[in-house]
Amino acid sequence: MAKTVDINSDMGESFGAYRIGNDQAMLSIVTSANVACGFHGGDPLVMHETVSTAKANGVDVGAHPGFFDLWGFGRRRIVGERPADLEKMIVYQLGAIQAMAHVTGHRVTHVKPHGAMSNMACVDAAMADAIARAVRAVDPGLVLMAMPNTELERAGERARLPIAREIFADRAYDDDANLVGRNLPGAVLHDADECARRILDFIEDGAIRSVSGKRIPAAIDTVSVHSDTEGAVAMARMLRQKLEAAGVVVRPLSQFIG
Amino acid sequence: MAKTVDINSDMGESFGAYRIGNDQAMLSIVTSANVACGFHGGDPLVMHETVSTAKANGVDVGAHPGFFDLWGFGRRRIVGERPADLEKMIVYQLGAIQAMAHVTGHRVTHVKPHGAMSNMACVDAAMADAIARAVRAVDPGLVLMAMPNTELERAGERARLPIAREIFADRAYDDDANLVGRNLPGAVLHDADECARRILDFIEDGAIRSVSGKRIPAAIDTVSVHSDTEGAVAMARMLRQKLEAAGVVVRPLSQFIG
Amino acid sequence: MAKTVDINSDMGESFGAYRIGNDQAMLSIVTSANVACGFHGGDPLVMHETVSTAKANGVDVGAHPGFFDLWGFGRRRIVGERPADLEKMIVYQLGAIQAMAHVTGHRVTHVKPHGAMSNMACVDAAMADAIARAVRAVDPGLVLMAMPNTELERAGERARLPIAREIFADRAYDDDANLVGRNLPGAVLHDADECARRILDFIEDGAIRSVSGKRIPAAIDTVSVHSDTEGAVAMARMLRQKLEAAGVVVRPLSQFIG
Amino acid sequence: MAKTVDINSDMGESFGAYRIGNDQAMLSIVTSANVACGFHGGDPLVMHETVSTAKANGVDVGAHPGFFDLWGFGRRRIVGERPADLEKMIVYQLGAIQAMAHVTGHRVTHVKPHGAMSNMACVDAAMADAIARAVRAVDPGLVLMAMPNTELERAGERARLPIAREIFADRAYDDDANLVGRNLPGAVLHDADECARRILDFIEDGAIRSVSGKRIPAAIDTVSVHSDTEGAVAMARMLRQKLEAAGVVVRPLSQFIG
Repeated sequence: MAKTVDINSDMGESFGAYRIGNDQAMLSIVTSANVACGFHGGDPLVMHETVSTAKANGVDVGAHPGFFDLWGFGRRRIVGERPADLEKMIVYQLGAIQAMAHVTGHRVTHVKPHGAMSNMACVDAAMADAIARAVRAVDPGLVLMAMPNTELERAGERARLPIAREIFADRAYDDDANLVGRNLPGAVLHDADECARRILDFIEDGAIRSVSGKRIPAAIDTVSVHSDTEGAVAMARMLRQKLEAAGVVVRPLSQFIG
Repeated sequence: MAKTVDINSDMGESFGAYRIGNDQAMLSIVTSANVACGFHGGDPLVMHETVSTAKANGVDVGAHPGFFDLWGFGRRRIVGERPADLEKMIVYQLGAIQAMAHVTGHRVTHVKPHGAMSNMACVDAAMADAIARAVRAVDPGLVLMAMPNTELERAGERARLPIAREIFADRAYDDDANLVGRNLPGAVLHDADECARRILDFIEDGAIRSVSGKRIPAAIDTVSVHSDTEGAVAMARMLRQKLEAAGVVVRPLSQFIG
Repeated sequence: MAKTVDINSDMGESFGAYRIGNDQAMLSIVTSANVACGFHGGDPLVMHETVSTAKANGVDVGAHPGFFDLWGFGRRRIVGERPADLEKMIVYQLGAIQAMAHVTGHRVTHVKPHGAMSNMACVDAAMADAIARAVRAVDPGLVLMAMPNTELERAGERARLPIAREIFADRAYDDDANLVGRNLPGAVLHDADECARRILDFIEDGAIRSVSGKRIPAAIDTVSVHSDTEGAVAMARMLRQKLEAAGVVVRPLSQFIG
Repeated sequence: MAKTVDINSDMGESFGAYRIGNDQAMLSIVTSANVACGFHGGDPLVMHETVSTAKANGVDVGAHPGFFDLWGFGRRRIVGERPADLEKMIVYQLGAIQAMAHVTGHRVTHVKPHGAMSNMACVDAAMADAIARAVRAVDPGLVLMAMPNTELERAGERARLPIAREIFADRAYDDDANLVGRNLPGAVLHDADECARRILDFIEDGAIRSVSGKRIPAAIDTVSVHSDTEGAVAMARMLRQKLEAAGVVVRPLSQFIG
């Protein structure tokens, strides 16, 4: 039977007069859009436009909540937030995007935390649990997108949320299935063709391959591509073409998970 | 048959380390809380606390959306916003407070715009319609709180929303049933006893009385009291006592409208 | 004797992860940079980079203060600010950019208000006087950039500030020397060559020419070009080339005013 | 010869409609005000009012820069800021308060970092050096307020800045002269009389005394008191009275340092 995967990307991170990413083009390629909710990026107008365009393209919409840190674009590690506070921060953002989806006739089907919040939750069980609790409290049917083998994945399991395991199209993995730090050589892959072939190998093998060559079995439900880097559109397009050419079915997450 | 009214107040306008208003005390007196949604004031923690306390006190929760203007506390007139943009701004805020109510086991039953947005919508039909459209799109069962004889009331009627007509406990009215400008003498009443007696007269008479003595028939569903002025708590308590002593039934809005 | 003019452009309006405008290219063409001060756009890092690059290119630096409205990019008309409050808002921004210039070995030589603040001050004497008072209080040697025949120019004269009269390279003027509203046909010129020829005519004639053909005598010290529109760099480059080819001396403002 | 000390307090941390602290009362007691600069708290209006009142009371004004984090009131630890970026963040804030002091006829004489920025700089040499570099770049005559034996003090020494050693009136010290964490018993002293006696002992002895009784020699130039806690005004008043009654001369920092 053909393997099915979703391709997801972060979107809707523009703010006011500021534009970031090529959402229009990306929404014609990906099957899931993780839409910023106004804390690290995004605003009501951008959210509305992104969700509307996603709907018109048959693209799933997920919440992409981040730290309350516009200047830092949610990338600054903010230490010491109480998990209970983080939980409320996420509830707020989920509610906002849910309403936006509702008024455009669409619906929110998944959640993927952004930037530093995501990085911290991958290794901090208390933060991960706070995120999972927030998602469950808002809607236990929401799919949590998480990298395999992270605290975030385990928190999702503890909260009995449906989980979509994700891999990154252009990032190298170490032997523990963690992303190689961006500051290390080879951490980010720049060749679209190579990225596509690599991901195809992972999907067919049911495992990711670390930089050292170690084979790490992993369920792969969704592949994450960037939307705001140079060559992002070409990378995403190449990935989708290669996957489909190899017989992989590319579908929105909600059609096979949750 | 006894007349029934609601007493409402704006709440949850604190932000981060900043406290404003005496919400705890007010929530033991009023029957409806209009909760700020994070744009002109409020944040997810404050919203959660306010909604939770409202629920514990049997107090209705409404959305209190404002302009995206924390520094100005939503009181600055921001001119030239397109109605379609304003609509999205309000959808966002309604969604956020709805989710917060949902996770605390409460629900949002009404909407009351804040500050300059409210003042402008009272006289600007396009803005008023944008607000009404946003409310209807999110949930057509939400009650719109509006002063009688304003564009906001008419917009609510056009959108076929349930409407709660409101009067202000401590503000003088002119012959067109508009609030006398705060810069004019006698615009704001400071004596709690006088306010209470006046409101009781209005309710019993089914009409408001202008500063010139003109009688203006008006349905009165809810009385608005301040929560952040000196003497606010005493004023609200006195009002409720006088109303109940006179046989007026004081109940949350959702028990008799919508 | 050859006529001397400055070419100015708004710069440094990026914020955090958000980039806007092509400052690097523009700073190799213009002679004055109006640098955003963190209220409607800009942040300390962007300011530092912009001022440093301006210095390296021999470009004058001016303050470009705006309303405290990042989301609206300073373009929303905020009505009802007290002039005394506006004055402090501007003092703050001037101080911030002055310090940034100081630590990079540069200095602030002029001030040009941004967006809605500028538009409102052109027709509102109280706002214009507040701006002029703020500038004078911080440094009476700062040159105020103002369109001829506006309240802002008159306020600068009342405050005895040195004034640089400015015209816009790509905007049509009406018979009162005001900009034709952007919503009207012909308000914005898009042909770089035509803009350059037109400005050259104005400079040689010592007058601007309205859309109806009326000749309005006007001192012209500086020509304003956009930095964030499509074709901005080409437009600016063409303008400078045409002016210099015609014998006009293009110099930073501080070399001939103030 | 009589010992001279300064009493300092953080001020001007209100924002827009939000009031925090009792600045008016505190400015009649302390001799130095550390004024927030608009990043973690404060705004141009609040800064102007605080600096003006300080001047009227003969109180020194210092800059009190913090992280760009209004919601967190500068108390959240933001990890990973590059020191060079932090430096520019501080330059911006210093410039803003300098201009505000200038237009009120006052001047900025010292700098004291706020909240998490201060806590982190006490133990992180790179952050401390960034702060000291920013201060020096803006004005090498500015006094850096620092706790003895911290990285911040050492950074000030490396930058050859004049330094004012500070102790906290109501905080317990451990054997390394660090503040006992707020979460530990006895970390914060609540009795105004006890605080005053303790500080007097420290000053007379030229040493602080840890919770275990260890005597740690330390220069003491200034005593820090809170302005926004319950009893803050009474605590400050008692401290000043006790010190003066014991013959200690209480003077603004600029009269004996820098």
